[in-house]
Amino acid sequence: MNHLVNLAALKKPLPPALLAQLHTLLGERLSTTQAMRDHHGRDESAYGPMLPDAVAFAHTTAEVAAIVAACSAHGVPVIPYGSGTSLEGHTLALQGGISIDVSQMNAIIAIHAEDLTVTVQAGVTRKQLNQEIRTTGLFFPIDPGADASLGGMAATRASGTNAVRYGTMRENTLALTVVTADGRIIRTGTRARKSSAGYDLTRLFVGSEGTLGIITEVTVRLYPQPEAISAAVCSFGSAGDAVNAVIQIIQMGIPVARVEFLDENGVRAINAHDHLGLPEQPLLLFEFHGSTASVAEQAAQVRDIVGEHQATGFEWATKPEDRSRLWAARHNAYFALLQMRPGCRSISTDCCVPISRLAECILETKADCEAHQMIYSIIGHVGDGNFHVLMMVDPDDPADIAQAEAINARMVTRALAMAGTCTGEHGVGLHKMDFLVEEHGEEAIDTMRAIKHALDPTNIMNPGKIIRW
Amino acid sequence: MNHLVNLAALKKPLPPALLAQLHTLLGERLSTTQAMRDHHGRDESAYGPMLPDAVAFAHTTAEVAAIVAACSAHGVPVIPYGSGTSLEGHTLALQGGISIDVSQMNAIIAIHAEDLTVTVQAGVTRKQLNQEIRTTGLFFPIDPGADASLGGMAATRASGTNAVRYGTMRENTLALTVVTADGRIIRTGTRARKSSAGYDLTRLFVGSEGTLGIITEVTVRLYPQPEAISAAVCSFGSAGDAVNAVIQIIQMGIPVARVEFLDENGVRAINAHDHLGLPEQPLLLFEFHGSTASVAEQAAQVRDIVGEHQATGFEWATKPEDRSRLWAARHNAYFALLQMRPGCRSISTDCCVPISRLAECILETKADCEAHQMIYSIIGHVGDGNFHVLMMVDPDDPADIAQAEAINARMVTRALAMAGTCTGEHGVGLHKMDFLVEEHGEEAIDTMRAIKHALDPTNIMNPGKIIRW
Repeated sequence: MNHLVNLAALKKPLPPALLAQLHTLLGERLSTTQAMRDHHGRDESAYGPMLPDAVAFAHTTAEVAAIVAACSAHGVPVIPYGSGTSLEGHTLALQGGISIDVSQMNAIIAIHAEDLTVTVQAGVTRKQLNQEIRTTGLFFPIDPGADASLGGMAATRASGTNAVRYGTMRENTLALTVVTADGRIIRTGTRARKSSAGYDLTRLFVGSEGTLGIITEVTVRLYPQPEAISAAVCSFGSAGDAVNAVIQIIQMGIPVARVEFLDENGVRAINAHDHLGLPEQPLLLFEFHGSTASVAEQAAQVRDIVGEHQATGFEWATKPEDRSRLWAARHNAYFALLQMRPGCRSISTDCCVPISRLAECILETKADCEAHQMIYSIIGHVGDGNFHVLMMVDPDDPADIAQAEAINARMVTRALAMAGTCTGEHGVGLHKMDFLVEEHGEEAIDTMRAIKHALDPTNIMNPGKIIRW
Repeated sequence: MNHLVNLAALKKPLPPALLAQLHTLLGERLSTTQAMRDHHGRDESAYGPMLPDAVAFAHTTAEVAAIVAACSAHGVPVIPYGSGTSLEGHTLALQGGISIDVSQMNAIIAIHAEDLTVTVQAGVTRKQLNQEIRTTGLFFPIDPGADASLGGMAATRASGTNAVRYGTMRENTLALTVVTADGRIIRTGTRARKSSAGYDLTRLFVGSEGTLGIITEVTVRLYPQPEAISAAVCSFGSAGDAVNAVIQIIQMGIPVARVEFLDENGVRAINAHDHLGLPEQPLLLFEFHGSTASVAEQAAQVRDIVGEHQATGFEWATKPEDRSRLWAARHNAYFALLQMRPGCRSISTDCCVPISRLAECILETKADCEAHQMIYSIIGHVGDGNFHVLMMVDPDDPADIAQAEAINARMVTRALAMAGTCTGEHGVGLHKMDFLVEEHGEEAIDTMRAIKHALDPTNIMNPGKIIRW
């Protein structure tokens, strides 16, 4: 992490003229209190605090543009901040500057139910969105677990449990409003479902983590609420059996809406947290969406396949309350795991590999964790070939952290050798910058750097993230 | 088209040293014959010929890199050429230079059936691909009609009849190998199904039409061949009834694999060409993919909906030969229409609008065509809100061409006012450069231009296309 020290040395004091200008613009919505800076300078990652000099609460795209223009004139960094749920150090103010908090930009701008699209301000969270559109008969499927903001989800190319059926933010974002490094406002697309009109700016900003521009509005696709939903759960004698069952399900093209893997450690944690009484063995949790007949057909096909892999205790949950209980437990797994080691923090990994290599990748990683007595769990959106190792480390023990990082590094190397990626859905942030080079090679990184230099020539947009200047 | 004249004035003679260098590299695979230059300097668009100075047939990515490096050193344009089926002047050599023909780069590099992916050289065509993978039980769904090359399909962000169910090249391209303007080779992604690893170079090059780099290899997703396929056809009293039926089908989330609209002129043309005897009224042509039960369920739901819109003659075609006959006729529509006016060329438009505005957009456009006595047909991938007006014009009659272009311009303005796009799938090329500005606005175009300048600083990559330098 040497580069962090070097970059932090570049930090300059905030010009008083800029502070005055922003205060005139925002009044009480500009904060320099220690508590507020503290809140915006820490995150769920294992990094220590890196505080912004001030926090600006924007209400409109025009305000974000004015803030960025002012900061640009002074060469001061801007870091977008949504709901603060990112995991790789994305929102940390490495060189100080202004944290632009868009959480109060939480208006639904336009619901076009007849077109299956909605446009929202960047601070709208996915739960709020689904709450506000519930009477339309539509829903927004992307579910990264945390109640993230749509702006943050677009910025990190988030996905989660439903991606196996509905895709990620990459597939579901139709258009963005973005404030560029010079404080101009661009609209990257239309509401048309497809387009060949020029460079795909939407997909360029999706996943750019605030380093090329600040996303202020997001237009996403919605889907009709399925006529029928059912969930199922079953247990396996080994992680390999569970994952091999998933591989077969995907290869057969069964359109499961969700298929989640939890290893025995994960099951033990959610049992303790949610009093579920599940067998403490590797487990798969499914959800099926469709017509009543189609859901029944999918479940029957899945039951046959898991049976071939010695699954036990295949149980249906068609009642909403039973489904909710299971999925709430899955969503609580992160917090449940934190409670397995009091005072710990989690280092979360995020590999994604071609599905045929998934069992091998998980088993080798599991063996590595066991060999080093790590307190951990493997949890995965396995239908996509994506899994997370959550390692519970003592934040005050550098050796413990180093061990977890070494396991992560070996896992990334393993995933890349299997034609996979170092991050399926969490993004790069500070944490994966070296892995990014390993994954793409210097030539492709040079191409990314050329784009960064072109769109942010003075390096004020979330500097020090994704790629080195 | 004034800018064409201006840019053509920039054309410089090819340096003999470059020609010698390329000849050493390629031998007989470098051609400067008039016939070869002619073949690569004309296309399906209404533009006149614009010939390259030479045509280079590359066999490998390394050869493409060597050609580009040599051209870069001399400041000579390079224009990628696949199967020559693009419609907007993409392959025309506006300023001369070297046409890099990748049609002989037609090797399947790696089939990973177990991961549902395949990697091919850029010159592999979609029919060749489906032929070569037929024994795997998988298929590649994207079908723009013409037997286009995968490289060209990626470069223009192509889609076609199956996109309503399977998405476009945007959603289905996992990774590319690209030669950049300085002759370096980059790989833009892995075979992982999803990734948050840095800027989305894959999606940036998809749709960039050779202006940022030359695509030499393409990795795409494959899908299990459906257990059951059936087709259905029905006729309507008006185009409005047909399109309103489609709107309802999409809003209900019925997962149709294809839904194509042909107006009465299109039906008349394919009747004449393929002796089909279809009622000469607006028609919808469906295809359903899934399990036997699911296909039957989808067809029943669709039959109910089209019935509410006064459809007549709803007919199933479950036999492969009947299905093939209908779809072959649909695919022949372009050529069938050309035969409706001997000696004509087609000017094809390509709008895409949010589905709720589709009926209105089609009906107003139809009225405009009728009012100006155009010989035309409207054909559409209507499930995506995408349709084409094919106007049969006399290539030697400037007034006829101008009239068609005026209808197109009014249609684009109409589509943009409805939150749509000027091109759903054909791309920008030479033909839509002004519309692109109208669609995105100067600020977003500036962002695109900054990317172009950063990745192609001497403007040698297919110069004069998409955006003005």
